[in-house]
Amino acid sequence: MTAPEQPARDHHVPYGHEPIHHGHVFAVERLRYRDEAGRELVRDIVRHPGAVTVIPVTGDGRLVMIRNWRLSVAGWLDEFCAGKLERGEDPARAAARELEEETGYAAEHVRGVGTFYTSPGFADERMHVFEARGLRPVPRRLEVGERIEVVVRTVPEVEALIADGTLVDGKTIAAFAQWQLWRRARPA
Amino acid sequence: MTAPEQPARDHHVPYGHEPIHHGHVFAVERLRYRDEAGRELVRDIVRHPGAVTVIPVTGDGRLVMIRNWRLSVAGWLDEFCAGKLERGEDPARAAARELEEETGYAAEHVRGVGTFYTSPGFADERMHVFEARGLRPVPRRLEVGERIEVVVRTVPEVEALIADGTLVDGKTIAAFAQWQLWRRARPA
Repeated sequence: MTAPEQPARDHHVPYGHEPIHHGHVFAVERLRYRDEAGRELVRDIVRHPGAVTVIPVTGDGRLVMIRNWRLSVAGWLDEFCAGKLERGEDPARAAARELEEETGYAAEHVRGVGTFYTSPGFADERMHVFEARGLRPVPRRLEVGERIEVVVRTVPEVEALIADGTLVDGKTIAAFAQWQLWRRARPA
Repeated sequence: MTAPEQPARDHHVPYGHEPIHHGHVFAVERLRYRDEAGRELVRDIVRHPGAVTVIPVTGDGRLVMIRNWRLSVAGWLDEFCAGKLERGEDPARAAARELEEETGYAAEHVRGVGTFYTSPGFADERMHVFEARGLRPVPRRLEVGERIEVVVRTVPEVEALIADGTLVDGKTIAAFAQWQLWRRARPA
């Protein structure tokens, strides 16, 4: 019997996943890989379960947004409602849940717009973007530690807030851009 | 002599910054804060030095982009060139540096477009967006471990890649959207 052949290690393909930190929201893993010259390199990567964000559109075409207190930057950010995926949770279901919890609206229709990576330089977080329509008020259910205000804005208002540097949440800017291009490709 | 008065702890303002991990690119800090009810809550936050991304515009209005091998997602992403800030580095200077290193173009003019947070739910990384014009070829100087191809695209091509879900780098989508709104607000 021969020993199983050692799989070839492609350069730039990580191996040696060493757990560094495991927290409530994310973990950190130390990866090793080799470059073309065979040098071993080490990078730390944030492992994140992924997240959803929702663009809720009212009957007259305005967007339900939030002002969200962000501990990471110790300030209020203008955002679309969002939240991380629970283990094994369907993104569309998570979107409907976060919409209700954070804005106090339930949606008749939740449709997938697209996805993107928020910061692939150091993290694998994938953001799933949804559009929600057919909104009706329901009780808000903020999670412990959340501090959120709801604000409804027109599309030109959102564009102006991005252009003047007031709206600085990258996920919200990217989701808004993706949604506008998605809508343009799918005329009603 | 009376003891110095304990400063009032505003709810939702973090205290007790405990270092958890310190790596080459980012650190992790455990923050404690109290909610309105006085409950102590704990959150881990990624501390990042910040980064720059550059939208290089050719004389005929096309955009110089890269295809970038990303270890975090083990795949190639379509992106604008980008890189993290070195300690104390001026963002505009970092933008000029990353442009030269990754794309092989030097720019006559580098102008600030805006900034955003890439993932404020768990990280404080701030992305500084620049437009570069007056491009001339220089030698590329990839850093050890980088794997990057240069590709030049028209604005409609970039929009199509975002709309069809091929371009999934959030920083690139957000920077592109910010740049288009910034240009609209500053007609030539």
